[in-house]
Amino acid sequence: MAKVDGERVLRDLRELATFGAYKTGVHRPTFSDEDIAARRWFVGKLEEAGLQGSIDGIGNVYGLSDGPGAKILTGSHIESQNHAGWLDGALGMIYGLEAARAVGRGVDVAGWCDEEGHFGSFIGSRSFTGLLDDDEIDRLANKYDGMPLRDALAKAGLAGVPRRQVEPGRYKGFIEAHIEQGDTLISSGLKIGVVTAIVAIWQYRITATGEQNHAGTTSMSRRRDAGLALVRLLAEIDRRFPELAGPRTVWTTGRITLDPGAPSIIPGRGEVLFQFRDADQAVLDRLDAELRRLVDEANRTGRCPMEIEVMGQSRPALMDETLQAALEAAGETHAPGKVLRMPSGAGHDAQYLARVMPAAMMFVPSIGGISHHWTENTSDEDLVLGAQVYCDAVERALNG
Amino acid sequence: MAKVDGERVLRDLRELATFGAYKTGVHRPTFSDEDIAARRWFVGKLEEAGLQGSIDGIGNVYGLSDGPGAKILTGSHIESQNHAGWLDGALGMIYGLEAARAVGRGVDVAGWCDEEGHFGSFIGSRSFTGLLDDDEIDRLANKYDGMPLRDALAKAGLAGVPRRQVEPGRYKGFIEAHIEQGDTLISSGLKIGVVTAIVAIWQYRITATGEQNHAGTTSMSRRRDAGLALVRLLAEIDRRFPELAGPRTVWTTGRITLDPGAPSIIPGRGEVLFQFRDADQAVLDRLDAELRRLVDEANRTGRCPMEIEVMGQSRPALMDETLQAALEAAGETHAPGKVLRMPSGAGHDAQYLARVMPAAMMFVPSIGGISHHWTENTSDEDLVLGAQVYCDAVERALNG
Repeated sequence: MAKVDGERVLRDLRELATFGAYKTGVHRPTFSDEDIAARRWFVGKLEEAGLQGSIDGIGNVYGLSDGPGAKILTGSHIESQNHAGWLDGALGMIYGLEAARAVGRGVDVAGWCDEEGHFGSFIGSRSFTGLLDDDEIDRLANKYDGMPLRDALAKAGLAGVPRRQVEPGRYKGFIEAHIEQGDTLISSGLKIGVVTAIVAIWQYRITATGEQNHAGTTSMSRRRDAGLALVRLLAEIDRRFPELAGPRTVWTTGRITLDPGAPSIIPGRGEVLFQFRDADQAVLDRLDAELRRLVDEANRTGRCPMEIEVMGQSRPALMDETLQAALEAAGETHAPGKVLRMPSGAGHDAQYLARVMPAAMMFVPSIGGISHHWTENTSDEDLVLGAQVYCDAVERALNG
Repeated sequence: MAKVDGERVLRDLRELATFGAYKTGVHRPTFSDEDIAARRWFVGKLEEAGLQGSIDGIGNVYGLSDGPGAKILTGSHIESQNHAGWLDGALGMIYGLEAARAVGRGVDVAGWCDEEGHFGSFIGSRSFTGLLDDDEIDRLANKYDGMPLRDALAKAGLAGVPRRQVEPGRYKGFIEAHIEQGDTLISSGLKIGVVTAIVAIWQYRITATGEQNHAGTTSMSRRRDAGLALVRLLAEIDRRFPELAGPRTVWTTGRITLDPGAPSIIPGRGEVLFQFRDADQAVLDRLDAELRRLVDEANRTGRCPMEIEVMGQSRPALMDETLQAALEAAGETHAPGKVLRMPSGAGHDAQYLARVMPAAMMFVPSIGGISHHWTENTSDEDLVLGAQVYCDAVERALNG
C-alpha cells in the first residue's frame, strides 16, 4: 500500500500557503505575482518527485510520469479566490504530489489554471479537454482589474507557449481531491466524501418592466411597480420550489436590482439573478418548467411584463463508478463507517475532465462548512487521513 | 374680479422654460448657471410688475408689495429636478407673478430655493419659517457633484447676504399653485384640485443580517439568506398593507440591495428602503405598528435578524379651511362641477409655510399623471384656466 508521509503533506500545504498569505488564508488570484511564484514552486516540487514538470500556454501546471502503461491523473488548482482559504485547490495539488511520491510511477499531476474564474470559466481544464479556443482567450480579461488574459499570460512568461491537450489513451482516469466546502461531513462526524456527481448550475436573469413614477402621487391602483412584481415572483418561488425540489437541490437569489433605486420613485425596472443546482436532470427540468410557469402566470395576471434569460445551463457530471468504488474501498480501509457518497454542490474541473476520461472526486471535511473565506480550514488529522485515503485510492485505480 | 392675461401667463411660462431647456422639459438644478439666471430673470419680472424684488442669503426670490394691510403670499419654486418638466415649480411662480399683476397691491411672491432637494430638504421654505440653522447650511453639499452649499451660494453672489424670515403679522396666508403630478384630475375630467392636506412621508431602512455562504454547497436547511428574509417580509407587507391602508395611502419599496450581490453567493446582508405616505395620522400610526409587528415576527420565526431604522417621519400638514373655501369658490366660478378636494401625495413648501401661517394649495391637471420627467405637461387651456382660478382665489383671500 502507498506509504504516505503525513508530516510532509502538512509541511507542503503550509509552504504553499505562504504564497499570498492573508490572515489564516491566502489571497492568490490567477496570474498575480504570488500565483505565478506558487506555480513555479510547484513545478520544482514535481521535479523533486521525479516527474517532468512544465507550465503550458494557458497556465496549467503539469508533472508527467514516465514509464509504460495507462496512468492516473491527479491534481486540482493552485490559484485561490480573493482573500480566501488555504486549502481550496491547494489540497488537491499537494495530495496529487504526495500520490506521485507515495505511489510512484504512473501518477501524473495537473494544476488547472483559473478554476476560480478570475479571467473566465474553467479555462485550464477546458483548454486541456479541447473546449477552449483561441478566440475566447483573446476576449477574456481579469474581472477585477481588466487586464487582458493575453497580457497576463505574457507577464507570466507564457506567451507563445503551446497549450497541452489530453493525450488519447494516456489515462485510466482523473481523481481530484478537494475540501467539501459544505458541512455535510463535519456535521455528521464523517471523514471522506465520495462524489457521485457534480451538480449542474442553471442560472437565470429575470427582468420586470414597469413604469417609473412618483411614489407620492401615483395611486396604488395605477402603479406598475417592477420591484413589487419581482418580490411577488420570488415569494412564489419560495412557496413552490420546496414542493418540487430534490433532497439536495439548492436555489438562490444572489442579486436584486431596482431601477432607479431611489426611496421616492416607483421602480420602473427590476432585475433578479436567480439560480438552482442539482445533479438530477429530471429535477432540473422540473424546476425550469416551474420557473417558466410562474413567470408566465405573472405575465398573465400582473402589470409588469417579465422576461427570463438563461445565463447558463450546465449539465450534471456523473462520476465514474469504478473510481468511486476505489475511493470508497480506500475510505473504508482507513476510516471505516465514515465514508459518504454525495453530490458536489460546487463546480470543479473534474466536471470537464469527465467529458474525456473516467473522473472522480474525494472530499475531506470543512470546519464549519466554510469556504471562499480566509477562515476556511480542516483539522490536521483530517488532512493526513484524507491524503492516506486519496493515495490508496489512486494506487487501487492504477492497479485495478 | 382679477383680470388674468392668459397669453401673458403662457408666454412667461415658456420664457422661464428656456433657462436650462431640455427636450420638451428643463434641466435646471439649484444654483446651476441656468437656475441662477432664471432667478435673476424672475426678479426682473417682479420689478416690472411693481414689486420690490430681491434674492436672500439662501437663494429665495422675493417680490414684495408695498401698501398697508395684511397680504397674501404666493409662489412656489424655480429650480427643477434633473432632466424634468417645465411646469413643476415654474407654474406656481408664474401664477404668483400673474396674481401680483392681475390682483394688484397686497400680493407678495416668493420662490423657495431648492424645493427639489439638490442640496437639502426644503431649505428655502425652512429658512423663511425659521427651521434652518447656519450649522446645517455649513454641512450641506450638492448630492450629485459634492459642491458645498456655501460655495454654491458664493458662486450665486449670495455669500454674506442675510436670510429673510417671515415677518409676523404681514400675511393672511400662503397659496401655492402646482401641477398635480398624479392622474386623479386628468383621469376624471376635473380641472382644479383643492388640497386638503399634504401627506406625511414615513421612510425606513430595513436591514437583515444572514450568513454569506456558497450557493452550491450550503444546503437549504442550513442557510441564513438575508435576501430571502427580506423578500418574505416584503411579501407580507404586500399582503397586509391593503387591509390597513386608507383609500389614498401609498407605500413603496424603492431599493433592495443584497450583499455581496453575486450570482453564486448567498446574501449575507440585505437592505430595503421602504416608505409609506398618508395625510391621516391614525393611518400612519397603524401602518408603522404593523410594519414593526411584521419585523418582530420575522425576528421571532426567521433566522436572519432584522433591524428597522426610521429615516424620516414628517407630519401631515393640514391646509387652511378658509383658504380652501376661497379656492373652491373660485374653481366653481370658472370650472363649475370640476373641482375636487384631495390630499397632496407629494411634499411641497406649503407644508412648512403651514407651520407659521394659514396655507393652501391648488392643483391643475397633469397629462398622463407624469412628473419628474421631461415629458411632464399640462394643456394650454388648463394652464390658463388654472391661472384664472388661482388669481381669483388670491383676490378672494385678500379681500375675505
